[in-house]
Amino acid sequence: MASDVTRRTLLRSIGVAGGAGVMFESMRALGLAASPQALAAPDFRAPAPGDLDARRRGKKVVVLGAGVAGLAAAYELGKAGYRCTVLEAKDRVGGRNWTVRAGTTETDLDGHTQTARFGRDPDLYLNAGPGRLPQSHITLDYCRELGVAVEPFLNSNANALIYNEGSGVAPQQYRTAKADVYGYVSELLAKAVDQGSLDTRLTASDKDALLTFLSGFGAVGGKATGYAYTGTSRRGYSVEPGAADQAGVVLGPPPSLSEVFASQVGRYFSFEFGYDQAMTMMQPVGGMDAIPAALHRAVGKDKVKLGTRVTGVTDTPRGVEVTYRDKRGKHVRLDADFCVATLPPHLMAKVPTNLGPDVTAALRYPTVTSAGKIGLEYRRRWWETDDRIYGGITETDLDLQHVWYPSSGFHGKRGIVVGYYNTGTASGTYAALSPAARRERALAQGVKIHGEKYRSELASAFSVAWQRTPFLEGAWVGWPSRTSGEYSLLNEPAGHVYFAGDWLSYFIAWQAGAFDSARHAVTSIHQRVLAEG
Amino acid sequence: MASDVTRRTLLRSIGVAGGAGVMFESMRALGLAASPQALAAPDFRAPAPGDLDARRRGKKVVVLGAGVAGLAAAYELGKAGYRCTVLEAKDRVGGRNWTVRAGTTETDLDGHTQTARFGRDPDLYLNAGPGRLPQSHITLDYCRELGVAVEPFLNSNANALIYNEGSGVAPQQYRTAKADVYGYVSELLAKAVDQGSLDTRLTASDKDALLTFLSGFGAVGGKATGYAYTGTSRRGYSVEPGAADQAGVVLGPPPSLSEVFASQVGRYFSFEFGYDQAMTMMQPVGGMDAIPAALHRAVGKDKVKLGTRVTGVTDTPRGVEVTYRDKRGKHVRLDADFCVATLPPHLMAKVPTNLGPDVTAALRYPTVTSAGKIGLEYRRRWWETDDRIYGGITETDLDLQHVWYPSSGFHGKRGIVVGYYNTGTASGTYAALSPAARRERALAQGVKIHGEKYRSELASAFSVAWQRTPFLEGAWVGWPSRTSGEYSLLNEPAGHVYFAGDWLSYFIAWQAGAFDSARHAVTSIHQRVLAEG
Repeated sequence: MASDVTRRTLLRSIGVAGGAGVMFESMRALGLAASPQALAAPDFRAPAPGDLDARRRGKKVVVLGAGVAGLAAAYELGKAGYRCTVLEAKDRVGGRNWTVRAGTTETDLDGHTQTARFGRDPDLYLNAGPGRLPQSHITLDYCRELGVAVEPFLNSNANALIYNEGSGVAPQQYRTAKADVYGYVSELLAKAVDQGSLDTRLTASDKDALLTFLSGFGAVGGKATGYAYTGTSRRGYSVEPGAADQAGVVLGPPPSLSEVFASQVGRYFSFEFGYDQAMTMMQPVGGMDAIPAALHRAVGKDKVKLGTRVTGVTDTPRGVEVTYRDKRGKHVRLDADFCVATLPPHLMAKVPTNLGPDVTAALRYPTVTSAGKIGLEYRRRWWETDDRIYGGITETDLDLQHVWYPSSGFHGKRGIVVGYYNTGTASGTYAALSPAARRERALAQGVKIHGEKYRSELASAFSVAWQRTPFLEGAWVGWPSRTSGEYSLLNEPAGHVYFAGDWLSYFIAWQAGAFDSARHAVTSIHQRVLAEG
Repeated sequence: MASDVTRRTLLRSIGVAGGAGVMFESMRALGLAASPQALAAPDFRAPAPGDLDARRRGKKVVVLGAGVAGLAAAYELGKAGYRCTVLEAKDRVGGRNWTVRAGTTETDLDGHTQTARFGRDPDLYLNAGPGRLPQSHITLDYCRELGVAVEPFLNSNANALIYNEGSGVAPQQYRTAKADVYGYVSELLAKAVDQGSLDTRLTASDKDALLTFLSGFGAVGGKATGYAYTGTSRRGYSVEPGAADQAGVVLGPPPSLSEVFASQVGRYFSFEFGYDQAMTMMQPVGGMDAIPAALHRAVGKDKVKLGTRVTGVTDTPRGVEVTYRDKRGKHVRLDADFCVATLPPHLMAKVPTNLGPDVTAALRYPTVTSAGKIGLEYRRRWWETDDRIYGGITETDLDLQHVWYPSSGFHGKRGIVVGYYNTGTASGTYAALSPAARRERALAQGVKIHGEKYRSELASAFSVAWQRTPFLEGAWVGWPSRTSGEYSLLNEPAGHVYFAGDWLSYFIAWQAGAFDSARHAVTSIHQRVLAEG
């Protein structure tokens, strides 16, 4: 704290002497303000054609998996002339970055086959995997570099709803819940400040500044009212203001303080403060799979072998031998200088290798998380026309957990709502059902929130249970510990084999983690090649 | 309060008996939950062709002003076969709904002529007047009806900045400011609750629920730490997390409680709770003037006479006589059954009429507000690439007041930042300057926030001072009182003359007010015609 105060005193004097611009630079230097440089990818330098002389140029790299990490590794290595071959078990690229649209067909591990019957409008899709891009993540840098058009993803919305069935309170808009919670919080803290309860922590000027803040933050009354919160137009209107004598009728009166806190609506508020979830969030126009599609084109379609099953990886003194079965069932052997293995760790653990029991054990160490989503296509966009909800997320204590309204295609004829996005036990509940039964469960719960139109306006549905999806078998993984050796072991090469994926980063379940990890593997390989005698 | 408790007890029992869906409907009926019907326009029925028999059909209406109110009135009346002529003094429709793009030329009342040198990309525009559409407003219903494509307008952004020069603190991101303010608020209230300071207001279960909420809301420590706020990743990172061992370094440490409240960053937070400003906000794709352009097409281009100056309005026993000078200077007299007058009231007051001194005095009664904006076109989108700011608004205590980053054209080559959007005294300061001097003042201030690139990357600029704009001469008006007679007088017809505009609604400065007021005038005229013997 002493050094903090000292730094701030220093800054205050710099500010006085040099103006705010100088002070901001100084603050950045001292790590007190966010540096734009730190927000962007800090230190990656893509391999470049001129880096390698003739002897070093054209090394072969085999990449296992055409998800974001695998494609990004091949893309970056390709910039310096590495010859990459990407082996992908599925018949498409992208891995968990998967967009379902009209005609998409998938058969899960339980033999359920679904074909999406969505309309053909370009905004009628379900991002079955990742659906949002934080503005800070390098994923957006790749979108810019690759020409993938982006638009806002509405990650929170004052008109979206909160529904805690357990509280017995009807669904209410975020705006209403926030007005009430922030109102009562402000009332209570103002009372405590005013009555001197916090005088050991607050100076007189702190108290003044705090009371001014709370007055605006909670829209509460003055001292004479006991700083009472009695409602405000922030809650919304039962009759909207309009022309002539239509002054509007504010929705009210607010529930009591006890009712508001007992309803637990406030537990959803901090989501939007999260580093990775705070608005602005973005999405590719037309579906998240625009990212792997652009990578696929940049890598070269001929470099990616779809429908291939890796059957063995052998590290050798001079490189690596990879065997696979191609889409016609033919066994093929591929010799390369390096391998970048981006399969999910629990699936990589099943591939026969000579990398040793520690590597295999480390690959089995992370815990696999499940997740599921359903896309509910509606014949009309009732959430916009009837409920004035333009995008955003309704939060619930139901096992559907989250309902997402679409962030594009506004005012279109049809639209696709994400009827559930759930993880953990709730995800398992749905995964155990047939697609038709999942749809029925999602509808029965959604009706509680939105009424019968939630069922009657449905046109079609498509659901995914990631744990039951071939060649992925999970949503993401977690590390019981990152310091017990496994995580660091897999972040080092096993001979000529480099692992990569979001699971080897601190951005698990984000594409940024896959990109960052791919960059890490690419940099390691490139530096090794550059250092060769 | 007693009836409130009774209603809630009733609802609880309905909830138990009938399930949440039934309860929600009941709450709506009791006015406790927002009714979607109330959110949309409540009771307007557009005139329809079948409404009028042959004798009543084809009445003539002259509309003064082709802003949103005037065009909307002509549009709705046209649906039932009224024959409308719209007189507009400017050489374009839209009024204050004005989008500046490549080639736009305007000469202000001081003789300053500007021509916009913006690039021709469709996202390179300045919405000089209204720029955002709340999801609740009927303006969006008109966009849907008229086929005006809409997209999100980013009205707040965690990566946008707060800069209070007066506090001596460097610009900081909203996310950082919120983390600190909410952190200390939570610490303080948790302390007060824990030490029993609020026991007269809180039950034991209230206290438990509140402490749980504050723990998440402020990300504060537990009881053993005194609920201390010590910073969190919500503040942002000085080194972002990444692959392998890059766990990230949280931006910190936070300033002291006294510094945070003294800096007054929190005074900007409640903006986003406002009924009209809470996200989701929307904008038309390609510029706000898509709305008047669509209305213009729907009304019929031949019905709108641009460049015409109204010179007199005379109410007669059978209708109204309007005289005007057309764009060639020719004097014209127009006879009609009704007139809808949508000029700004202070300009309408100058038109010779026979409507009497009370009407003229009422038109002079509202107070005219000024506002200004500048569009700064940059050669590169440094706010995205360098500062990771995708849309949103930076708030300041400088006289530029607000800086808006564009909500479209992401990752494009160029972009247009709203370098100031100010009202009141600050607006007057800029209005008094030449366009070049306004630009220099805006740049000098922006440099304090964003550094030298704010000046060095500039390509071109275009500014507007509404109080100096011909035929508008103001941004919007305010009513010193709505109950002193003037407001209600002008909301009634003066003979066959009906006034309309946002200024005659409770949505002043919003297009929704203009639409609502137009509907009010249209309904009044239509009902009068239907009631005629």
